[in-house]
Amino acid sequence: MPDKLKIGKLVVIGVGLIGASFALALKRARAVGRVVGVGRTRGNLAAALRMKAIDEATRDAAHAVRGADLVLLATPVGQMPAVMAAIAPHLSGRAIVTDAGSTKGDVIACARRFLGANFPRFVPAHPVAGTENSGAAAALAELYRGKNIVLTPQRETAAGAVALVQRAWEACGARVVRLDAAEHDTIFAAVSHLPHVVAFALVSALARRRNAGKLFGHSGGGLRDTVRIAGSSPAMWADICLANRDALLAALEDYENELETMRAAIESGDGDALRAIFGRARAARRKWLVKKQD
Amino acid sequence: MPDKLKIGKLVVIGVGLIGASFALALKRARAVGRVVGVGRTRGNLAAALRMKAIDEATRDAAHAVRGADLVLLATPVGQMPAVMAAIAPHLSGRAIVTDAGSTKGDVIACARRFLGANFPRFVPAHPVAGTENSGAAAALAELYRGKNIVLTPQRETAAGAVALVQRAWEACGARVVRLDAAEHDTIFAAVSHLPHVVAFALVSALARRRNAGKLFGHSGGGLRDTVRIAGSSPAMWADICLANRDALLAALEDYENELETMRAAIESGDGDALRAIFGRARAARRKWLVKKQD
Repeated sequence: MPDKLKIGKLVVIGVGLIGASFALALKRARAVGRVVGVGRTRGNLAAALRMKAIDEATRDAAHAVRGADLVLLATPVGQMPAVMAAIAPHLSGRAIVTDAGSTKGDVIACARRFLGANFPRFVPAHPVAGTENSGAAAALAELYRGKNIVLTPQRETAAGAVALVQRAWEACGARVVRLDAAEHDTIFAAVSHLPHVVAFALVSALARRRNAGKLFGHSGGGLRDTVRIAGSSPAMWADICLANRDALLAALEDYENELETMRAAIESGDGDALRAIFGRARAARRKWLVKKQD
Repeated sequence: MPDKLKIGKLVVIGVGLIGASFALALKRARAVGRVVGVGRTRGNLAAALRMKAIDEATRDAAHAVRGADLVLLATPVGQMPAVMAAIAPHLSGRAIVTDAGSTKGDVIACARRFLGANFPRFVPAHPVAGTENSGAAAALAELYRGKNIVLTPQRETAAGAVALVQRAWEACGARVVRLDAAEHDTIFAAVSHLPHVVAFALVSALARRRNAGKLFGHSGGGLRDTVRIAGSSPAMWADICLANRDALLAALEDYENELETMRAAIESGDGDALRAIFGRARAARRKWLVKKQD
């Protein structure tokens, strides 16, 4: 059995739902010494301090990372270039850096460009967890329990760095899996980024209508669940859509083709075709999603 | 205060989630004498008997409705013509008939055609409730508590018939509202039928992919909630899509245009446009859906 994990100084850059929950979980596991939170708004940093997710708050990432053992980048992916460029000169030779971005190809390219000599100690990661709420105030120490964390280490990535990041996530109660970065981006375009686009588009189309208030007033639990994730952060999701553009556009095209097949069946009154499509969808949901939940 | 509601003989044609839950709720409220369930499969009728949702089961609708005080038609809407044609000659002059169809224009046209002299005692209704599960075994006495029941009475509909159906639903704990039938169909095309098409299409597009198992294996709570209603009955939803074709196609077109706007923004890397659309969607969801839930 390995020694108990002890991270001396953890720096969380971007103290939102994801970053603050990571800090809370590590504190609860007594796996971390001091946590410094870096954020852009005083209100959110104050909330993170109040919840004791972080011990110290600053808006200066470069200063914060000095002496850090582990740095978690938990900002929207669009901010990664600026953040990495700012911290790179101040990282010690032993600092391990990881991220929580929902896309991996772009973040890895960015790290390769900006982290320089520290790149072998950068461990690309994607915690597959979250809620539709954002901000430190929404953080939960239990957010990652039983959830998957996908690591996409590169050829250069040091085994020791991967091991530490894996142990940190396991201390949060999560399960660590590995994927090739490009495969990760294709998979999550389909099962996460596309569903967000679908949910945002559905609410947006309804909201544009003259009688939007009446429409929503008559809606039931079906619409509510279908668009739950349209409560997610617009800035974060705009970043993700652009960072994973090609894979997302391919998944969107597949989906639009499926809608067109359904539209044609509705237009021509082809009940058999509709029953076949709906039946296949229901069977797939049962086989894969309901089973998974159990 | 009116006398306590007492329906002597209730006949439920189509003893699925909706019909069996109605019967259970009225029994719990002691508002009904005997309940006869009419169904097509012995297994489902046996389940309804076991749960005591019904007292007697038969596959003969014509025979069942003799002497009925209230008849609920809770079959998929595509079966309404055959059911109404079968029962019309056997309804007494006092029998009140109502339905639970998710579309109203087609059901009303069907009732006008097949119920003849009984048409003034037909009360078109749509309980806005349900789960993704089907069948009597999924029935819940509490299914309708706090839910909306939309009535769309016609010029000819007898006030006394509307009053009885309203009291029956209120005895189930529901809230009764009225809408024009055409307006009902436009509203529910947008807030219910379209979301089902969206959910079925999303699962179906993923299920067609070579690596479908792996895709679903990496999915999280976002996809799970977005496609929950793709667990609904394929036959019932094919019927609804065809029964409400014009309104659904119009809503689908709106939605596809919204997707195209988003696709264009993703393709051209227009983060401002994406943030604006996502932001409007999030604000609309908060204003209308989250507020409603509270």
